[in-house]
Amino acid sequence: MTSPDVARLATLMREASPLVHCLTNSVVRQITADVLLAAGAAPAMVDHPDEAGEFAAIASGVLVNVGNPTSEQVEGMHTAIASASENGTPWVLDPVAVGGLTLRTGLATRWLEHEPAAIRANPSETVALAGAGEGGRGVDSTDSTADALAPALVLAERTAGVVAVTGPQDVVVTNSGGTTHATWITSGHPLLQKVIGTGCALGALTAAYLGAARATGIDDHDAVVAAHAHVGAAGTSAGKVSAGPGLFSVAWLDALYTLTPEEIAASVELLDATP
Amino acid sequence: MTSPDVARLATLMREASPLVHCLTNSVVRQITADVLLAAGAAPAMVDHPDEAGEFAAIASGVLVNVGNPTSEQVEGMHTAIASASENGTPWVLDPVAVGGLTLRTGLATRWLEHEPAAIRANPSETVALAGAGEGGRGVDSTDSTADALAPALVLAERTAGVVAVTGPQDVVVTNSGGTTHATWITSGHPLLQKVIGTGCALGALTAAYLGAARATGIDDHDAVVAAHAHVGAAGTSAGKVSAGPGLFSVAWLDALYTLTPEEIAASVELLDATP
Amino acid sequence: MTSPDVARLATLMREASPLVHCLTNSVVRQITADVLLAAGAAPAMVDHPDEAGEFAAIASGVLVNVGNPTSEQVEGMHTAIASASENGTPWVLDPVAVGGLTLRTGLATRWLEHEPAAIRANPSETVALAGAGEGGRGVDSTDSTADALAPALVLAERTAGVVAVTGPQDVVVTNSGGTTHATWITSGHPLLQKVIGTGCALGALTAAYLGAARATGIDDHDAVVAAHAHVGAAGTSAGKVSAGPGLFSVAWLDALYTLTPEEIAASVELLDATP
Repeated sequence: MTSPDVARLATLMREASPLVHCLTNSVVRQITADVLLAAGAAPAMVDHPDEAGEFAAIASGVLVNVGNPTSEQVEGMHTAIASASENGTPWVLDPVAVGGLTLRTGLATRWLEHEPAAIRANPSETVALAGAGEGGRGVDSTDSTADALAPALVLAERTAGVVAVTGPQDVVVTNSGGTTHATWITSGHPLLQKVIGTGCALGALTAAYLGAARATGIDDHDAVVAAHAHVGAAGTSAGKVSAGPGLFSVAWLDALYTLTPEEIAASVELLDATP
Repeated sequence: MTSPDVARLATLMREASPLVHCLTNSVVRQITADVLLAAGAAPAMVDHPDEAGEFAAIASGVLVNVGNPTSEQVEGMHTAIASASENGTPWVLDPVAVGGLTLRTGLATRWLEHEPAAIRANPSETVALAGAGEGGRGVDSTDSTADALAPALVLAERTAGVVAVTGPQDVVVTNSGGTTHATWITSGHPLLQKVIGTGCALGALTAAYLGAARATGIDDHDAVVAAHAHVGAAGTSAGKVSAGPGLFSVAWLDALYTLTPEEIAASVELLDATP
Repeated sequence: MTSPDVARLATLMREASPLVHCLTNSVVRQITADVLLAAGAAPAMVDHPDEAGEFAAIASGVLVNVGNPTSEQVEGMHTAIASASENGTPWVLDPVAVGGLTLRTGLATRWLEHEPAAIRANPSETVALAGAGEGGRGVDSTDSTADALAPALVLAERTAGVVAVTGPQDVVVTNSGGTTHATWITSGHPLLQKVIGTGCALGALTAAYLGAARATGIDDHDAVVAAHAHVGAAGTSAGKVSAGPGLFSVAWLDALYTLTPEEIAASVELLDATP
């Protein structure tokens, strides 16, 4: 059980510039695309049911984020998930505000059967999606990362995939064939919570890292950790020069772009464990 | 007739961090969420008709902004307004470009019956919504704040609510039981007009202040004034360090976050009057 | 064959502050509106089929951008294009990712019959729309501007309009009555490719310049060149002060606003040719 080689993964991701198909909520589409571009990936938002399957088939990774869905977008998500599954494209589920709202809780729960390569969620969403709680207050989390560890392991087993719980401290867990693996990530900055879409964009970047990692035979778990490290390191860097969320957001995008793979790796503290 | 205690209201709002349910136009969702976060509130955009009622029931305040509606979002707005009315949640109507466009003029006019706690509009929208004019050119206003005072009082009486007319100078009016109250607010900066969504975000922040004020028994009129003061003070602050709208937008978000309640109150000139 | 008087056109556009009706993709609505405001135009996004025709009739220019369409928005686009044609309003087609996706390729191809005043596209989209290739990878171009010159001339003849191919170097072509005219534009900065929506916003600004130029009897070709010059000059200016896409985006908006018409003209290299 060793920590992933974050620097190598960041290098691979930037070299591959993976095309990420995002079906995400309408609040964060611009910042999600900007984050993917800054980090070194290529974004495309394609929600129409007549296009989503066609596009998921050529993308390197797919993000499905259920924040603020429309009926038509939900159809597009069904199509994209089916196409991703069929084509072996890794897809990421971001269950925004699941638990608190009936429609999206039903959707996200049903989609677990299609085995997302990764789930990225805050602690309350993780607890709710695992069926162990009622979720937080809208997009806010009322549980801690530690509270969400056991539910995350349940989800990881059920999907045979990676589950990343994002909070002040992040934990990425895998449970394959009965063996569990958890990587705790200490990085980031509190102002990340004061800019809309930083977590949603992390979901998209997770799909980018998964796409690049799959193409080179690297483990999904390590790819998800590296995505979190990239976002967290940029947050730490931006926090050093910002007093408020406006400048923080600008500096964070710049750091996603300018930090070298070695700087990303050096900025983040990883702790591997068997939970 | 005394000026509201803006500093106290800003303190209360930040302490409460009210959850604001925004059904707003797709152009300004990101900046609206960022403004709420920076100012100290918690945003959530939930437009689906199957979710909007459920969410309005747990929110502290609701914003309905008719800029660029979709058919499905209009259904969600109906549901959210009904739920807000039923649950006593204050809701804010922002009648973007009403007067110039038939569909949204009809919608906003009909929704007056559901008595929004506040209406936030530019002068031309105010005039048009009161049935006294044809509105401006798209989102621009072709009337002055003074032109809109009488129509604002008509609207305030009809809805038994607060009407805020936003322009180079703002005026907030109430007409309850035949007694009228107007507060003129001098603050802000011309660059606020050169960044999309500053007015729309003010509508959302108005819902946040209303939510926090209601929970502590403070008058709606004062809450609406305080929201305008917060946005205006941040604009004045940002204007001092910016030559163009790019940096202004960044500095404005920072000031919404960093200004103390006392600094907000000290930056704004209030004039109370019986119109 | 002389180069357009960019400074005069920028002055005219800012004086006219043309109202631009944008039917554009949901990823870039905020930055598109911010770019129009910063440059001196007035944006409005109106997508609903019941409003789009009404609004196109009063706008100075219309943008139709097929990135990430919804079914309802497509109906609105049909209505807006018909209204623009009927009212003699210049409209701009931005065929985002055409070639790679069946639905939008069909839509954009059909709309050529309605003779957009201008088409703004990257090289791969230009090649695909002319029926000469399969498009790029999502929104990326895999062809060069030079590759797209001949297809651009084909499109210009078919629509009797202007075709602008945007890349590291831009070319604007017209083919009226058998006489061809090409203006090559050297300007901008590589970071423009790392901020989402800079190309899409250029499409909207093209509609603004066309609206202002038509009102004063200036040639469409020259208006399209001037829009590209304005965006490119601001990019060059922003590139001088930015190390990453975050600050670049801020500085670009500021430069769109602060650059004088003479500074815009002086920053850009134009080369006119008969291709």
